[in-house]
Amino acid sequence: MMTERYTLHEDPRSGNCYKIKLTAALLGIRLETRQYDIMAGETRTPEFLANVNRNGRIPVLQIEEGEQTRFLPESNAACWYLASVSALIPEGKFAQADMLRWMFFEQYNHEPNVATLRFWLRFVGEGNLSEQQKQMLPAKRAAGIDALNVMEEHLKSARWMAGGAVTLADIALFPYTHVAEEGGFGLDDYPAIKDWIGQMQSLPGFIPMD
Amino acid sequence: MMTERYTLHEDPRSGNCYKIKLTAALLGIRLETRQYDIMAGETRTPEFLANVNRNGRIPVLQIEEGEQTRFLPESNAACWYLASVSALIPEGKFAQADMLRWMFFEQYNHEPNVATLRFWLRFVGEGNLSEQQKQMLPAKRAAGIDALNVMEEHLKSARWMAGGAVTLADIALFPYTHVAEEGGFGLDDYPAIKDWIGQMQSLPGFIPMD
Repeated sequence: MMTERYTLHEDPRSGNCYKIKLTAALLGIRLETRQYDIMAGETRTPEFLANVNRNGRIPVLQIEEGEQTRFLPESNAACWYLASVSALIPEGKFAQADMLRWMFFEQYNHEPNVATLRFWLRFVGEGNLSEQQKQMLPAKRAAGIDALNVMEEHLKSARWMAGGAVTLADIALFPYTHVAEEGGFGLDDYPAIKDWIGQMQSLPGFIPMD
Repeated sequence: MMTERYTLHEDPRSGNCYKIKLTAALLGIRLETRQYDIMAGETRTPEFLANVNRNGRIPVLQIEEGEQTRFLPESNAACWYLASVSALIPEGKFAQADMLRWMFFEQYNHEPNVATLRFWLRFVGEGNLSEQQKQMLPAKRAAGIDALNVMEEHLKSARWMAGGAVTLADIALFPYTHVAEEGGFGLDDYPAIKDWIGQMQSLPGFIPMD
């Protein structure tokens, strides 16, 4: 098998991009990066849409093998690709599905609330939000708290999110959870989450978010 | 290996529940069902939260094997479980990750827009929407159109969403796409999507949504 080369199309402020870099770091995989400013629309240019991702989003993992170049959007799918046949994906059928369960939960229940509030409050700025965004704040706040509560309840009786060891479920949920306070979600009410964050930060090969 | 018994906790109006029933039908797997009315809050009871899914959502796949009972929330994770070691999950490493890419796209870009507008317009009723929901209509409309455009562009040059054959990516995207008109998304501008819908409906074992 030829050696593959990986380039991550990313914005370093994005927790979704960090997931992939953390997966690569824990597995000792080398990643090149190409950086875009999402606030300046750099992922909505005709060139980006035509060549990298017609969905206009980062991260995208570019995979080169010999003459072949392929692009893989969606952070959790890119993590899956890099972690294939590694201990970060459990082998058991239920454990594997349960890991994916938390990765879908992350994209549906956690990211649109916990990450969006961080983006709005830290990067856009509360004073710059549209009226519509301001009106959505309470519902997103409540849904983000619900998501953190679900994680806390799970982690009260389990050391990791799925399968009894660190997996992609933990890697998917870690980035936006550990900076949830930047979106106004205090973590003092979540002691099990705080312990889990400490476990993540102690993993061999761990790298922090930029 | 002992035989597993499956019970799907569902609301028959939900496309997310239909995904799992369609997966089971295509694979010839028998599913019992237990039905809930999400509009009446039946998935938010203390009993449901304690025993079935503390996230208060359906679908949940209940898996019984001998004395052991396990619960698997998240529609796409349940599909993955049922389809493990079947042709609905491609074997190739890239194809598998690319299939998951579309399943994450479905939960992040497609479902919150295409499915939510269907829910609001068909089941809640436009006159019963809150002011906030009414104000979100244009943005959800635009994001739903974006998601359908991404699918259409892909399907112009590919018969299936990932891996060159029908996979869980198609099953995940089919339910809310084929009833998108109930959310006000006319499909006449999407001939490739319409062809793909026809292919899905022609699969051996196909069952329609209730």
